[in-house]
Amino acid sequence: MNREGHGNFVGAVKPQSMHFDQPLSFRSGTMLREYDLAYETYGTLNADGSNAVLVCHALNASHHVAGWYENEPDNIGWWDNMIGPGKPLDTRHFFVIGVNNLGGCFGSTGPATLNPETGKPYGSSFPVVTVQDWVEAQTRLADRLGIKRFAAVMGGSLGAMQALQWTISHPERVANAVVVAAAPKLSAQNIAFNEVARQAITTDPDFHGGDFYEHGVVPKRGLRLARMIGHITYLSDDAMMEKFGRTLRSGSINYHFDVDFEVESYLRHQGDKFAEYFDANTYLLITRALDYFDPARDSGDNLTSAMAAATARFLVVSFTSDWRFSPERSREIVKALLDNRRHVSYAEVDAPHGHDAFLLEDPRYHALVRSFFEQVHARL
Amino acid sequence: MNREGHGNFVGAVKPQSMHFDQPLSFRSGTMLREYDLAYETYGTLNADGSNAVLVCHALNASHHVAGWYENEPDNIGWWDNMIGPGKPLDTRHFFVIGVNNLGGCFGSTGPATLNPETGKPYGSSFPVVTVQDWVEAQTRLADRLGIKRFAAVMGGSLGAMQALQWTISHPERVANAVVVAAAPKLSAQNIAFNEVARQAITTDPDFHGGDFYEHGVVPKRGLRLARMIGHITYLSDDAMMEKFGRTLRSGSINYHFDVDFEVESYLRHQGDKFAEYFDANTYLLITRALDYFDPARDSGDNLTSAMAAATARFLVVSFTSDWRFSPERSREIVKALLDNRRHVSYAEVDAPHGHDAFLLEDPRYHALVRSFFEQVHARL
Repeated sequence: MNREGHGNFVGAVKPQSMHFDQPLSFRSGTMLREYDLAYETYGTLNADGSNAVLVCHALNASHHVAGWYENEPDNIGWWDNMIGPGKPLDTRHFFVIGVNNLGGCFGSTGPATLNPETGKPYGSSFPVVTVQDWVEAQTRLADRLGIKRFAAVMGGSLGAMQALQWTISHPERVANAVVVAAAPKLSAQNIAFNEVARQAITTDPDFHGGDFYEHGVVPKRGLRLARMIGHITYLSDDAMMEKFGRTLRSGSINYHFDVDFEVESYLRHQGDKFAEYFDANTYLLITRALDYFDPARDSGDNLTSAMAAATARFLVVSFTSDWRFSPERSREIVKALLDNRRHVSYAEVDAPHGHDAFLLEDPRYHALVRSFFEQVHARL
Repeated sequence: MNREGHGNFVGAVKPQSMHFDQPLSFRSGTMLREYDLAYETYGTLNADGSNAVLVCHALNASHHVAGWYENEPDNIGWWDNMIGPGKPLDTRHFFVIGVNNLGGCFGSTGPATLNPETGKPYGSSFPVVTVQDWVEAQTRLADRLGIKRFAAVMGGSLGAMQALQWTISHPERVANAVVVAAAPKLSAQNIAFNEVARQAITTDPDFHGGDFYEHGVVPKRGLRLARMIGHITYLSDDAMMEKFGRTLRSGSINYHFDVDFEVESYLRHQGDKFAEYFDANTYLLITRALDYFDPARDSGDNLTSAMAAATARFLVVSFTSDWRFSPERSREIVKALLDNRRHVSYAEVDAPHGHDAFLLEDPRYHALVRSFFEQVHARL
């Protein structure tokens, strides 16, 4: 990608950090006395603070949503194709915020952070976080940035769940919500995949019950397996077949348990890379937040009742080949909104890439988001 | 199950073993100088040896296909609902053989067997086996039992792949083939799941490069994860939802990483059980045999050409909710047979249980197999 000579890139950005010393209580009953949130912003907040868009991240992403870092020009934000001047979420019109969730490992307070009370990393003592907790932490960031009401809250996958939760917990603070590749709760199979990933991490002898920091080791074997399992669920069977087929790395079968097929090489590489930079406790926390997300639970398992609080206008997008959160799951959300006579646009995009499609630059998908934000802008 | 007072059970059976001292060469270029095959038989071989049916096993099963052991009345064969007097594969008419594949861990020579040349377990030196190798070993067992031509070769999943291979490698020795829940080769996604399972085993510190026997340990953590991953792929999303839903074990969320959801408890239990009895090297070998199975590969990736050799009459059965080997994969086999103007009956059974459906007692599925074997019997 040639980043020079293009007008539609956010360009070089700087991550910021905000300290909060008002204690935050978690759904689990525990609390943090103080914490930091790492975040980035793109574009300019207008005078009445009405053009802010919060972009929530999914499992392994961060606050680095768009642009790149001056000293790391290849470290491009995970949704850079979506956000920038002239892009679907146009930073000439909107003030966009990315925030690393609590429990994360990219700058916000998380399990690897030193607990000021003990001087040691939180490790296993870090609170189990929920999507609701993240939203509460995000409201405080919004308060400090002077944002009373977001023009939109937006996310894909787990990020979309946060957008949904915003519309339920703080309907008065969300004018619009963009909910991409989501589900109103995990299925048993979704939980099962998360559980195997967690078991891979917690049974790694280097995990030490979550307090591996003090032992100077990292449960890389477990993290690597967790990432490999996750990766299979992000791609469609067809996309994998298209990308790798049964291609043999050396051209012939070698009758061993080392890499023979390209897909094996790819998975090992993805796993190795991930284990180098991701925190094992963060992986546990984030998959658990996914498992526990279930807004209908407090409304007698009735999603329509749960969504009754929401007043935002919605764009809901799913992808035909997504078998992790299939279109059927998005239609459950759409139905609950329609039951409540809410304003909702729904699109099922015919894309071959599986769950990962939400991160890719599909023209039809991007045109939908662009059109939605043009209307949001027109109503500002 | 009350086993007394029912006429249609095979009853108490005894596993047998046969020693072979003629060396067997493997596709990998290695060989075994001698080996044993564990097997069982049910029913009686007729005078001209024409009523024999070979039942091939899938990943974690064995030669113990039907009946139970006198000293282990709860150890019931894995396809006991299919095989017995009056059952779909009727042992009043057929002589049924189950055989544990080479490389297995239930009595046939495998990685845990002492290598007579070294006095130590084969471990990592055991040959990488292929479906073709298994079929060759099975032909020798057939020779010794006096069976020139099988009335049928039958199997589900990996067992069905062996039945397919029989019809290609030894068409003159197979009158009929029953191919249930199969695929003509694994997809990239199928290989990916196998690879993660193998990586879980081989990166377990207790694996010791496959020679863990000498260290007095077993890579249980890896085996456990492998089984958990496998189990998810055997069940449909719907079947998991039906069986477990999002049911909480204690009735409420406990905000921890121990078991909260029933599906977690189930997977851990399945993993723990499996790690107690299954051999880690066998798991590697069998998943690799699955990966490598690809009869079209030697025919320019043309399955029709590959199946041209087959002369058997086929029954091919798939299950609508099987996402491991979907009906589409069975239809590839059916198409290749029809291209060759072979006799094939194909049924797509509407069953909710996923890949595991092939082991379950579905009335429509069993009626199909029964009808097929009645015709096989009529033609004897």
